[in-house]
Amino acid sequence: MTLDLAAPVEVLAKALIDLPSVSGDEREIADQVEAALRACAHLEVTRLGNNVVARTTLGRAERVVVAGHLDTVPIASNVPGRWADDGATLWGRGAVDMKAGVAVQLSLAAALTEPTRDVTWVLYDQEEVEETRNGLGRVSRERPDLLQADFAVLGEPTGGVIEGGCNGTLRVDVTVQGKAAHSARSWKGVNAIHHAAPLLQALEEYEAETIEVDGLKYREGLNAVGISGGIAGNVIPDSVTVTLNYRFSPAWPLEEAKERVEKFVQAAFTAHPETLERWQAAPDELALVYSLVWTDEAQACRPGLDAPLARSFAAAVEATGAESPRAKLGWTDVARFGVLGIPAVNYGPGDPELAHADDERCAVSQIREVRAGLEAWLTS
Amino acid sequence: MTLDLAAPVEVLAKALIDLPSVSGDEREIADQVEAALRACAHLEVTRLGNNVVARTTLGRAERVVVAGHLDTVPIASNVPGRWADDGATLWGRGAVDMKAGVAVQLSLAAALTEPTRDVTWVLYDQEEVEETRNGLGRVSRERPDLLQADFAVLGEPTGGVIEGGCNGTLRVDVTVQGKAAHSARSWKGVNAIHHAAPLLQALEEYEAETIEVDGLKYREGLNAVGISGGIAGNVIPDSVTVTLNYRFSPAWPLEEAKERVEKFVQAAFTAHPETLERWQAAPDELALVYSLVWTDEAQACRPGLDAPLARSFAAAVEATGAESPRAKLGWTDVARFGVLGIPAVNYGPGDPELAHADDERCAVSQIREVRAGLEAWLTS
Repeated sequence: MTLDLAAPVEVLAKALIDLPSVSGDEREIADQVEAALRACAHLEVTRLGNNVVARTTLGRAERVVVAGHLDTVPIASNVPGRWADDGATLWGRGAVDMKAGVAVQLSLAAALTEPTRDVTWVLYDQEEVEETRNGLGRVSRERPDLLQADFAVLGEPTGGVIEGGCNGTLRVDVTVQGKAAHSARSWKGVNAIHHAAPLLQALEEYEAETIEVDGLKYREGLNAVGISGGIAGNVIPDSVTVTLNYRFSPAWPLEEAKERVEKFVQAAFTAHPETLERWQAAPDELALVYSLVWTDEAQACRPGLDAPLARSFAAAVEATGAESPRAKLGWTDVARFGVLGIPAVNYGPGDPELAHADDERCAVSQIREVRAGLEAWLTS
Repeated sequence: MTLDLAAPVEVLAKALIDLPSVSGDEREIADQVEAALRACAHLEVTRLGNNVVARTTLGRAERVVVAGHLDTVPIASNVPGRWADDGATLWGRGAVDMKAGVAVQLSLAAALTEPTRDVTWVLYDQEEVEETRNGLGRVSRERPDLLQADFAVLGEPTGGVIEGGCNGTLRVDVTVQGKAAHSARSWKGVNAIHHAAPLLQALEEYEAETIEVDGLKYREGLNAVGISGGIAGNVIPDSVTVTLNYRFSPAWPLEEAKERVEKFVQAAFTAHPETLERWQAAPDELALVYSLVWTDEAQACRPGLDAPLARSFAAAVEATGAESPRAKLGWTDVARFGVLGIPAVNYGPGDPELAHADDERCAVSQIREVRAGLEAWLTS
């Protein structure tokens, strides 16, 4: 079996679904994708592990990256795929996340021999597993030159709407100090859990901001996602750790986002001077009242929808009947482009709520619409 | 070797130290104690496991229990015992906790053939291990009739001062409910950790009361001794559990102490109506905002120092040069008498700070003073 990139895009999507490629097992699909793209004389193809990069080299003024991942989550009796609703729906693992999107990309990579912008098609592996294995991450580390572009489109399912950029995410462990003592003589200790009250109170009162970036609205979030403290049922706890997760808009570079969290924590405690006084009145003065340890950080990505290149893309997509672009709130691989300084958006067929579902399925009309949107943009 | 109850009390204490009796291994010491007490014609002796109860039956108007445990924590190269400071100090495992106290009791049990109050001497096993193995607990369950009395003295080390009654202790898990959601869309969930803020704030502001009971001052404590919540680093936590420990004075029966905690928790949340409003505004109404699960309860014990019987005891002890009675704050076996409705105090030789220490030791003079205090009371 070889992939026929000239087939109708939904037929190509089904062929991709029928080629199992659970994360870590992408060799065969990568081999077939590579072979099919190498057959296109207008593309310069590079293979890096199970990642395939195919570029036009027409010397255009602008270059865009269009990327998609080849892997899926594990199969749930939904491979091979099947047609439903008299052929209007394609069922199967990856119908949404994201073999329909990959089919759009491969179909256009073969068809568009002379796009108006140079295009770098990136098909990568291991997106559905831990971050360190991510194929796009590998390409960006080992061959960042291959990803250089003015704009990037990631084909993740968005229901055929442009979802621009993505929020960043930070995790930090805030540890509040206390002093252990037997709970029958609690006044000899300092209760760290009690002293975390101002932080929780500040979180309870916190109203997440919605911040507009390049015309899109990013709703933020600052949440305790974990808390733990206590030694034993008869001991005053000597520390408590609150894990905070800050989802921050592309308005803030990583360092500024961290500063915002640091200031929030500091303000929480200084707003409750009585707690600070209790600390200072503690039997042995506690040098450190709280400390922050960053455990996870991923920067946000701007949508770049204010640039002419992106505006033309948005116009082409809206011409397919799609809704206006909106902000992407979850963190996605577009942020890898953010790290390289390339604005990026998500745009692909399929209802994201059905990704990973046992009854994963996609409307054929949406696959065609997304193909039409991208084609219009790359040929206008 | 047999125990010579007529020996000087400190010599008897050393003989008891030299008879190893780590918890669970009390058979030999119980055999010897039983034999020595059975040799006293004025005592009626009952053996229950490795517990020995010896009673006078003089038909006095009042009966007192004097109790001590036979076991020790593990030996740390401190058996056999030895004399130090020219014989002024007795070293060894149990010198404090509590073979000096047992020596006082056995010495008086043999010597006082006609005490002015009937006396029930109780020597029991397995005090230093988990509660369910406790010998005094076994006697109180299987032969509560043997413990009937108007007043009880437990010979635990108190430095020769009467420490009256004991605080009770309660533990309860307060679980605050939330609703899970992806933290990138936190507004779709209800953050249980944030909603615990009013409870922590109330704990932070709580000032423990000091409550006078029968003339002694009991300092209470209400503390979070543990907290835990959180599902994953990118999930809004759907619940958080705060473990509270209430150390309460003998002024409150167990049920009333529980009610006080329940009211405290309720008041904490009703004092923050904005948190309740947020709960009510939650996407799916949460029927249960928080729940309480009691995990440990032990009632307090009154010192009973307002009764004439106890006042005469306090006077006899103060005549030895000891300080005035004070409240016992930690939970001790006196509470087992509380359960039976018998007021009780702790009174024994030895510095409690040295109990269980590798260099456990006791001043001989204090052993003699405590013997004198008890003897004066039981003969006046």
